[in-house]
Amino acid sequence: MRIEILNTGTELLLGTTVNTHAAWFGREFFKLGLRISRQVTVPDGDAIRQALEEAVGRNEVVIVTGGLGPTSDDLTREITAEVMGVELIEDEAALRSLEEYFAKRGRPMADANRKQAQHPVGADVLPNPNGTAPGVYVPPRLNGRANCAVFLLPGPPRELYPMVEVEVLPRLRALAGVDGENDALELKFTGIGESDLHDGVDAALHAIPGIEVGYCAHVGEVDLRLIGAPAAKEAGRKLVLERFGGFLVSDDGSSMEETVVRLLTEKGLKLATAESCSGGLIANRVTDVPGSSTVFTHGFVTYANEAKVALLGVREESLAAAGAVSETVAREMAEGALRVSGADLAVAVTGVAGPGGGTEEKPVGTAWLALAAKGGETDVWKVFHPRNRHDFKVSVSQAALDAVRKRAACFGEAMGNR
Amino acid sequence: MRIEILNTGTELLLGTTVNTHAAWFGREFFKLGLRISRQVTVPDGDAIRQALEEAVGRNEVVIVTGGLGPTSDDLTREITAEVMGVELIEDEAALRSLEEYFAKRGRPMADANRKQAQHPVGADVLPNPNGTAPGVYVPPRLNGRANCAVFLLPGPPRELYPMVEVEVLPRLRALAGVDGENDALELKFTGIGESDLHDGVDAALHAIPGIEVGYCAHVGEVDLRLIGAPAAKEAGRKLVLERFGGFLVSDDGSSMEETVVRLLTEKGLKLATAESCSGGLIANRVTDVPGSSTVFTHGFVTYANEAKVALLGVREESLAAAGAVSETVAREMAEGALRVSGADLAVAVTGVAGPGGGTEEKPVGTAWLALAAKGGETDVWKVFHPRNRHDFKVSVSQAALDAVRKRAACFGEAMGNR
Repeated sequence: MRIEILNTGTELLLGTTVNTHAAWFGREFFKLGLRISRQVTVPDGDAIRQALEEAVGRNEVVIVTGGLGPTSDDLTREITAEVMGVELIEDEAALRSLEEYFAKRGRPMADANRKQAQHPVGADVLPNPNGTAPGVYVPPRLNGRANCAVFLLPGPPRELYPMVEVEVLPRLRALAGVDGENDALELKFTGIGESDLHDGVDAALHAIPGIEVGYCAHVGEVDLRLIGAPAAKEAGRKLVLERFGGFLVSDDGSSMEETVVRLLTEKGLKLATAESCSGGLIANRVTDVPGSSTVFTHGFVTYANEAKVALLGVREESLAAAGAVSETVAREMAEGALRVSGADLAVAVTGVAGPGGGTEEKPVGTAWLALAAKGGETDVWKVFHPRNRHDFKVSVSQAALDAVRKRAACFGEAMGNR
Repeated sequence: MRIEILNTGTELLLGTTVNTHAAWFGREFFKLGLRISRQVTVPDGDAIRQALEEAVGRNEVVIVTGGLGPTSDDLTREITAEVMGVELIEDEAALRSLEEYFAKRGRPMADANRKQAQHPVGADVLPNPNGTAPGVYVPPRLNGRANCAVFLLPGPPRELYPMVEVEVLPRLRALAGVDGENDALELKFTGIGESDLHDGVDAALHAIPGIEVGYCAHVGEVDLRLIGAPAAKEAGRKLVLERFGGFLVSDDGSSMEETVVRLLTEKGLKLATAESCSGGLIANRVTDVPGSSTVFTHGFVTYANEAKVALLGVREESLAAAGAVSETVAREMAEGALRVSGADLAVAVTGVAGPGGGTEEKPVGTAWLALAAKGGETDVWKVFHPRNRHDFKVSVSQAALDAVRKRAACFGEAMGNR
């Protein structure tokens, strides 16, 4: 079933508002196994006419958001009726509910609002308990030229989302005859590049009948999406994990930090962080996760050398001999954080974020990481991410969290083999 | 000049990624006085063909993002050449720079990457110092059917944004015949809502001949953009600052953290942070600014009460009597951070980020902030931002940084009057 989303709103094209509707619709529809074929944004006013004509001509479902308000540039209702060649009529029930909306708030209803009670002849009015603009559903039979259903929905999320839930999704299920078996499987990987992952599995995946494959690269992460029948997805998952299971962060859509917090919670472990070049980003990511306060206790952002010495017990001699960006200092930071915090795991990062501060021996992008564990050995390793400052911080924090994830996963299991 | 943005990416339609490019382009183009006529999103693969044909037929400029990667669903290059009826050729310089990109990172170049060095005959290759996919510029003359310029740009923001800055905007200026004189003046405010700012200045601003006004609200910040001739912009700036100068963060596009780091640097001041509910975000924002290491030394993320006691000297009695989210504890955190770090300023935050942990007395969204200064008094105040966890952290960090900004600005000046 071809579905097109048509968002109207000058603010979306001026960039003063980010279009979050499109992604939200994508996620909601995906749960039904449906996809959006195309999404279009046009300014307020008459620009919707051409876009709507095109959309109705090539889709089975068109969903329009915005332009149902009372002002002069809210023309979605009028233009939809014109495009379909039917009249607008005033809906008595819709008018009464508009009047009640204003009465309830003790405000007079402006004349301009009256047009919000109109809808194309033969369409359904979709009640809006959260605002003044009712929605409109134009069933396919009304559109003689093309067998296309059209939904007109209000723009504000707090009006739109409940209306989609209550009025739109049930109609879509009926139109498409779907059940939800086709949900996407999302595998998140780190430590491997998009093209390496692609080259390693793409041909084999495409040999699975009925599977669809999508890749999406972020800084420090590649997401692989598998779509199809349950058996096809499972075959794909098995194939990918056999080759790249060691790089898997999650297979349920969880982010790295969500995965880390979940693992630490399950194992009853506490984490401390000691950050120099990542500047608090690791702590910030961990504390983005609700419930992180039960597993994360102490975070140190020891940006200055004196802070490394005073807070973490890094030795002056180590700084003098090896420099702040070194194996020794990373180790002493992690072990110091573990000792001071009393946590079970402590991860430390020290590096050269740039743009200044690089040397031939330690160019911008160099970082030493260390992971100390209560009663275990400390791992220390070097990474190199010659990127801009922001992406360097993200990459380094990702590597640090991935190390925590791996260590937490095997904590208490076969400790002697590590 | 009609400009259309064509975003390719299945992840945008599946909703796993929110399309922030469209809004970003809108803001960048607005600075040149240009508007986007339409924005279209299509999935990866062949779907771009029809959209590109339509777009080229009705615009002077079409900007395509995404689909320049090495994988089998990256077809933007191939389809653009087909739509324009020209061949693809391999660019030697682009291939060399691809090989260098991988060599620098010590990784072999996958075969799949080789196609990224291709471009339609007669097009310009746009160098990509931040990734493997070079951009492509197809000048209008190449498109015989329509006088339309086409840009093919990489999808990842860290590759896209610099390429637009360096390669796209200068070409757009030339195509549109705009000089830098009309660039937007951007005033950033905090502590005031978008509608209050709007109601306070909008009518008066529109009375200035030849001025265009744009508002953009973010969490904890409102940006006001003025476009027009230099005299109009200056008149607008004066008018706005007379009324709302006390809320101004910057008038040169600098972010809050850039402004704070610049002020601290100018005044020779050092900053320490003591964070509970903001979880390292303040430190992370400060350390996003190049050069912040000269002004930021110690960051404490004291998420657990024991950490507040052990690292900052918060008294057990204060925690027991007033709770962690209290005036007393915020004060003791800031004063402790100042003492331990030896910095000139220390800012502290403790609050209830939610979704859990709220009480009737201290609902989710409550935070106490404190700012301690060497040889000065400690300010302590409460804020209330009942938002989701992420936006709460941003709001609170913004309030904390704004306090640092104001205190730093008057440091050393009329100290007796504070």
